[in-house]
Amino acid sequence: MILVKDAIINGKKQDLLVEGNIIKKIGNISISEVSKDETEIIDGKNCVLIPGLVNTHTHVPMSLFRGVADDIPLMEWLSGHIWPMESKLNEKIVYAGTLLGTVEMIKSGTTAFNDMYFFLDSIIKAVDETGIRSTIAYGMIDLFDEEKREKELKTARKSLETIKNLNNSRITGALGPHAPYTCSKELLESTNTLAREYNVPIHIHMNETLDEINQVVEKTGMRPFEYLNSFGFFNDVNTICAHCVHLSDSEIQIMKEKNIFAAHNPVSNLKLASGVSPVLKLLENNVPVTLGTDGCGSNNNMNLFEEIKAAALIHKGVNLNPVAVTAKEAFEFATLNGAKALNINSGEIKEGKLADFVIINMKKPYLTPKENIESHLVYSFNGVVDTVVIDGKIVLNDGKMVTIDEEKVYELAEEAYLELTK
Amino acid sequence: MILVKDAIINGKKQDLLVEGNIIKKIGNISISEVSKDETEIIDGKNCVLIPGLVNTHTHVPMSLFRGVADDIPLMEWLSGHIWPMESKLNEKIVYAGTLLGTVEMIKSGTTAFNDMYFFLDSIIKAVDETGIRSTIAYGMIDLFDEEKREKELKTARKSLETIKNLNNSRITGALGPHAPYTCSKELLESTNTLAREYNVPIHIHMNETLDEINQVVEKTGMRPFEYLNSFGFFNDVNTICAHCVHLSDSEIQIMKEKNIFAAHNPVSNLKLASGVSPVLKLLENNVPVTLGTDGCGSNNNMNLFEEIKAAALIHKGVNLNPVAVTAKEAFEFATLNGAKALNINSGEIKEGKLADFVIINMKKPYLTPKENIESHLVYSFNGVVDTVVIDGKIVLNDGKMVTIDEEKVYELAEEAYLELTK
Repeated sequence: MILVKDAIINGKKQDLLVEGNIIKKIGNISISEVSKDETEIIDGKNCVLIPGLVNTHTHVPMSLFRGVADDIPLMEWLSGHIWPMESKLNEKIVYAGTLLGTVEMIKSGTTAFNDMYFFLDSIIKAVDETGIRSTIAYGMIDLFDEEKREKELKTARKSLETIKNLNNSRITGALGPHAPYTCSKELLESTNTLAREYNVPIHIHMNETLDEINQVVEKTGMRPFEYLNSFGFFNDVNTICAHCVHLSDSEIQIMKEKNIFAAHNPVSNLKLASGVSPVLKLLENNVPVTLGTDGCGSNNNMNLFEEIKAAALIHKGVNLNPVAVTAKEAFEFATLNGAKALNINSGEIKEGKLADFVIINMKKPYLTPKENIESHLVYSFNGVVDTVVIDGKIVLNDGKMVTIDEEKVYELAEEAYLELTK
Repeated sequence: MILVKDAIINGKKQDLLVEGNIIKKIGNISISEVSKDETEIIDGKNCVLIPGLVNTHTHVPMSLFRGVADDIPLMEWLSGHIWPMESKLNEKIVYAGTLLGTVEMIKSGTTAFNDMYFFLDSIIKAVDETGIRSTIAYGMIDLFDEEKREKELKTARKSLETIKNLNNSRITGALGPHAPYTCSKELLESTNTLAREYNVPIHIHMNETLDEINQVVEKTGMRPFEYLNSFGFFNDVNTICAHCVHLSDSEIQIMKEKNIFAAHNPVSNLKLASGVSPVLKLLENNVPVTLGTDGCGSNNNMNLFEEIKAAALIHKGVNLNPVAVTAKEAFEFATLNGAKALNINSGEIKEGKLADFVIINMKKPYLTPKENIESHLVYSFNGVVDTVVIDGKIVLNDGKMVTIDEEKVYELAEEAYLELTK
């Protein structure tokens, strides 16, 4: 059991008790109520306790690609830098990159993430070790080639089986077809079938750039959401669509009708000059918006607090509307909405919810005066958190990783980087 | 003397020696070269040493206004929240707010700032105590009233005299007429005269919102820069113009001809929905761009690393141009250009420059792999620095303030906040 004493929780100073992986009680809890031998007591004085953040669009091993190629056009970025490096990936490199990325997320208050990448055995191993919660998809790309398609689907199914057999409630599977402009209709149809068979969500890139949308329109006569909807891709599954930068009104209607989650990536979209997602229109139409960092090739970090701030700022600025995307809305994108997208019973601090939470010491200049802490977490906080509990276990304690030797993570990451760039 | 050993400086591992307030030597410096008794030795292993940042537009005591009013329209923000609170300001509150703001800046790597506010004696006292470098202007507003004008000019002159008599090279004066829509022509003319008399820069808000520009156009038939230029406001002084969000081509030409510094405030401009400054056009015309956080009422922090990242991202996104504002450019806005604007001999790490620098431990997930550190400082760093040297003195050591009791700063800040909001 874990007992947090005297923290600010849901706006008032109170205590919180964890039993197993669940928030058992919130309120006034005296130490005499719990068994001292079996309870870890955390002093929450001067601290705020918040739900762990949920990062709904990542390529976590790309943490190793941080800073390798900035300030260049997209195709040069992909073909000149990212793809050549990705061709050198192996299990060892992906393991090192996942360790680095998950440690970075935990230390900035993220307790769950939704990933799409390759070498899933290594991703799973690192996630298991660092203690974070994750929904993991193998990224499928067939480039309209039948042989490749069968191979991709086989790999995806194998990954889902592996994850199912883990029997680890922290690690769940997903289907990850890359995008409508890189995947055949047959692959996308099989994706929906598999997702329903395994009862897992779909994670896909949608409408990131004007160019890719034009490719789909030319090929199919329909915009990407219309095209996928025409063959039932969104039926009866949770679909998380990354980016959603350029959307027609009819596409927003499809998102609304099919309860599709938009994983908004404001920083990546700015950095790669893709544009700014019409989040205000999504909100007007009750399309659930979540937040993602994307991979470190295009961000260049996995600090979801920066996405929260970016989401709260950018739509005000580009719409010349100072009330667009409130602090409360932006925070919910990263917590409640993210949890819903991944079907995790978390995202808020309530009895009966999963014990996935974060404790932040408020004795910081940027969190003072402490009276407006909800605002500070959105508009002022830098993401440096003190304690992180995931699935009822302390994974970060007073700023230090409990589950893994951080020095070793840096060592493996630097080694892997050398191998990637040699 | 201070000797920094084995830090990454200007891209390679080397040592740096400070004598007095000057960087004396950079290179291979053995400990035997210096007097051990008189030298503080800083271990720079695994660290990068960079120039201290220069924040060219602040209202530092507004740190106490952090989070009091978000997500509301500008006039409601001003008249419903900011102005009523400002009416309660006194020397004690401004002192507490300045302590809080300067500690926040130091802890996020800023070594100098350009301020405009009221109760300058308190600002000076706090700046003196925390050890930061500052250019301080009394904010003048006459609202076209002659009596008020004389009072404002008298207060400004008195402040300049006070600062001159301090004989503290860290603290210099400036003239701070608020803006062309709040100050009479006579006040602005006297500003230029005074600035030349005292050989200090002018710090003014320019072209922040469309509404204020329209007011000036209606009144004078000219756009704000044209109007000020018509009576020689920019002649023979360094002028730092905050915001510069909406600029005509002819105004940019005036900025170029008069070598006017634009203090770009990307976060504040987004949050208050003022818009996005045409920084690409400024750069094309060789107008020197610097960075400012603005006050904490509209940001809501003073972490200049966030402005660097915002400046490197926003112009890519809104211009759909992935090569707009490179990492190197954005970093120079905050260092070299800021130092030039305030006429400080710093902004780069070179022998003979002022010893205003910052040391950052690179053993952080978001700074790994460490090979791309210049990129990380712009696109990934959260601003948490380890050691700060200003004017040859260590003011932050291993994350802890040396010059002042940080606990006391929080205490005073919380007290002042209660007084402001009661």
